[in-house]
Amino acid sequence: MSAERIVVIGFGPVSARLVEDLLPTLAAGEIELTVLGAEPHAAYNRVMVGEVGGGRADVEAITMADVDELRGQGVDVRVGAIVKRVDRSRRHVVLETGEALAYDRVVFATGARPVLPTLRGLNFAPHVEPELPAGVAALRDLEDAAALRSVIEARGRVVVLGGGVLGVEAALLVQEQGGQAVLVHNGDFPMARAVDADAGRLLSARLCAAGVQLVPSATAVGVREERDSFSGLELDDGTVIDGDLLVLSIGVRPRDEIAAGCGLTTGGGIHVDQGLCADTEDRVFAIGDCAAVDGARPSGLIGPGWSQASWLAGYFATHRVRNPFLDGPIDEVAEARRAAEDPYSAGVPQELPGVILLKARGIDMAAGGLVDVSLWDEGPQRVSVWADPRQGKYVKMVTEDGVLSGFVAIGMPRTAAELVMLYERGRELPADRTTLFRLDDAAMSVEAEPSPDDVLCRCSGATHGQVVEARDAGNASVESIGSACRAGTGCGGCRDKIEAILATAPAASGDAEGLVRA
Amino acid sequence: MSAERIVVIGFGPVSARLVEDLLPTLAAGEIELTVLGAEPHAAYNRVMVGEVGGGRADVEAITMADVDELRGQGVDVRVGAIVKRVDRSRRHVVLETGEALAYDRVVFATGARPVLPTLRGLNFAPHVEPELPAGVAALRDLEDAAALRSVIEARGRVVVLGGGVLGVEAALLVQEQGGQAVLVHNGDFPMARAVDADAGRLLSARLCAAGVQLVPSATAVGVREERDSFSGLELDDGTVIDGDLLVLSIGVRPRDEIAAGCGLTTGGGIHVDQGLCADTEDRVFAIGDCAAVDGARPSGLIGPGWSQASWLAGYFATHRVRNPFLDGPIDEVAEARRAAEDPYSAGVPQELPGVILLKARGIDMAAGGLVDVSLWDEGPQRVSVWADPRQGKYVKMVTEDGVLSGFVAIGMPRTAAELVMLYERGRELPADRTTLFRLDDAAMSVEAEPSPDDVLCRCSGATHGQVVEARDAGNASVESIGSACRAGTGCGGCRDKIEAILATAPAASGDAEGLVRA
Repeated sequence: MSAERIVVIGFGPVSARLVEDLLPTLAAGEIELTVLGAEPHAAYNRVMVGEVGGGRADVEAITMADVDELRGQGVDVRVGAIVKRVDRSRRHVVLETGEALAYDRVVFATGARPVLPTLRGLNFAPHVEPELPAGVAALRDLEDAAALRSVIEARGRVVVLGGGVLGVEAALLVQEQGGQAVLVHNGDFPMARAVDADAGRLLSARLCAAGVQLVPSATAVGVREERDSFSGLELDDGTVIDGDLLVLSIGVRPRDEIAAGCGLTTGGGIHVDQGLCADTEDRVFAIGDCAAVDGARPSGLIGPGWSQASWLAGYFATHRVRNPFLDGPIDEVAEARRAAEDPYSAGVPQELPGVILLKARGIDMAAGGLVDVSLWDEGPQRVSVWADPRQGKYVKMVTEDGVLSGFVAIGMPRTAAELVMLYERGRELPADRTTLFRLDDAAMSVEAEPSPDDVLCRCSGATHGQVVEARDAGNASVESIGSACRAGTGCGGCRDKIEAILATAPAASGDAEGLVRA
Repeated sequence: MSAERIVVIGFGPVSARLVEDLLPTLAAGEIELTVLGAEPHAAYNRVMVGEVGGGRADVEAITMADVDELRGQGVDVRVGAIVKRVDRSRRHVVLETGEALAYDRVVFATGARPVLPTLRGLNFAPHVEPELPAGVAALRDLEDAAALRSVIEARGRVVVLGGGVLGVEAALLVQEQGGQAVLVHNGDFPMARAVDADAGRLLSARLCAAGVQLVPSATAVGVREERDSFSGLELDDGTVIDGDLLVLSIGVRPRDEIAAGCGLTTGGGIHVDQGLCADTEDRVFAIGDCAAVDGARPSGLIGPGWSQASWLAGYFATHRVRNPFLDGPIDEVAEARRAAEDPYSAGVPQELPGVILLKARGIDMAAGGLVDVSLWDEGPQRVSVWADPRQGKYVKMVTEDGVLSGFVAIGMPRTAAELVMLYERGRELPADRTTLFRLDDAAMSVEAEPSPDDVLCRCSGATHGQVVEARDAGNASVESIGSACRAGTGCGGCRDKIEAILATAPAASGDAEGLVRA
């Protein structure tokens, strides 16, 4: 049986994970593997572009694949390779250069691109990968990071357009690193989709206290330029918000036009089934930010993308494409029996419900589900609120039959972590909700030692036990821990926890109980 | 030196306390004591009239003085004695009968009367003690109690007009005892002066759940009669609220017209100084619900009245009226020295800030100060709120420099008790306000044993230690404990606690520590 030819379109973090997990199958000679990256770089963790821009991480730390090493292992890595179209009848991926790459299976891992606003003075060329003009960035690629970095280093003014979690994080990062951030958003408060009005109000207050200038209820209509670079954002009321850099953070859209061009169903992402398959022939797949599993909007989070990549690598390793000429007619009984025993027949693991975690020093926030419910709404939901805004604290819990359908927690990090856990696992809350608040009481803190099975890194799924094991095996930096067990290589939100584990000495080999007895 | 003639006008619970505390001075022959009651009964605890009406207490249990016993001890007790006027130049109290009683000192303890609304069909004779028509009561005297009792026993409908704490308590009592209560009030929610909108909304919900019919935002304009008795309350929108009894609970007004008639300053009560003195000659005094100490509105609570009565008895025992003819000219130097050493020169003890406690089975509520402050108000106040309305729980704490300036707590009795204590003593709250909520967590309840010095009965000031001592001395009923140390004889709010203490066996005389060591 000849090796199956797999071509992966896109070379971002999800694609890198797929490639990595396919290496054993490649080494076994069962597949040939080609990966096509449009950018001139190797895959890097896009989620961390802001951190690079802010100077909190460098490019090396967020790089996710070593091109030379992959090539040495037999992967045909092509960077700067622009795909023109996919010819499904001939099973070719056609590059802009005209080269046609034959495939048995093709995987779309094309990710998403920033939504670009329609603004006077910001005229993009009418194609799908527009160049942003000087002084305008989107925090998706390394060029954006470089632009942000130079403005912050000059202590310049950064206008962030968009009040979602990424916009808020960008504004706080700019402020923390010594720049001046202006957050321009519509609605009365930032993160209006994730939080209720009281939480939004507190969030606004905390942002102001951090030095971020807020421009709420704003509609941007144009940009101004000076010396061929962005100089200000025009609002519909005539106000001009001056700045040295405009960061666009109004959302992303799946890169699915090549998939659409070859006849696949798209619309909010490339439609795939639970097996991540986009066609009826088990040949075309999509993963990550470009994939709409069962038609659902992609989460935009790296964790589910990695989980898909890992699942798909396992599927490819165990399921070859059926060839009707060689394999003969389908024996439906045998097929049904095989499917019943196949662990892959259930499809990718169910995604956990989406949780928004604000990564910012000084403001701790987690939210999930629907919280825009009043204390007094009729209906099956119980709503509980703790508000102490002068202390920067707010917790809202919306439950049905004791299980969270929505929550937001600000300024109470341990309560927040517990709520995230309860929400994701669908566990019942304690009848007296106030018991949760004890987690954040320094005086109470007989802090529960996390169990080794507790997930520490939400993106990679690495557990507390795996990180401790990696540390005890001699890994002494966050990067080295990441190489060992992937913890901390996703959104970066758990890097503080990894640092804390590194700071504690490996468990003493002496008998602690013995000391007490002595 | 001849005995000083003291005449007390009024024979309510505060007057009864004054008389009781003056008995030793009377026995010593230093004073003559006359007490004038307008009602035909001995003094009784007016605060408990509702409980008698509801059948929770009987008349004997709330009677505060035994007329025969007092007479036996030399007190000139006159019941059914209506005072017409006080002649301050002749120093006579003149009765309606024409009899003039000479005094050296006179004490107004005339209390307060219900405010009567102006309603069509409810025409009071134009004098100060109007007779209420059949089917209309005010919960101030034993006739009201009897009227309420008979309607409840017939499972009738009681319309309570007024949403203050007494109206709410009356409605809940009616409902609990098997009647049907309708609570008619203006404003969006009951107790609007004591609580904020969210607490009011929760309170409304709890009242509805208890079966009370609420008629909010109502303006009563008239009463309807059938067979010469109340049959319904007319509202300004034409609605008629049918019922068998109308209970008026729209406030009280000090009985100060006799004082005003003899030239004393009145207006919201008889104005007295910190020494409870209404004139410049140390002869006219006022205590309880008719007294405006330093011009401040009387609290309407029995505790402060008792405290005034007790203070005044001590003052009378130690300070005779100065007689310029017999005592000669004032030696100002000696006078100043005496005043500096006199424990009475500082006046009555400072009243604790007013706290409203709802006495009702099933709804627990305490409030004090100003809570109508939004979470987001600018200013020096920190506002913290815990709301879990489906569980009937709501706590709002308003602090300045860590000290409560207002609070309301519903459905969390131990948190409420702690807040009352912190509010009255002006103590600082824990920085993390949520620690207070642990008091109400059954799971946490390593309940702090009250210290013997902790006040158990807020009205009498009796401590936990005094009640335990009274129990250990053989008092086996709440009434008997009350006779021994006055605990439970005021508003009745602490009777449950006394019952709990009675239910526990006296401390074992064995050495508990010894048992542990063995």
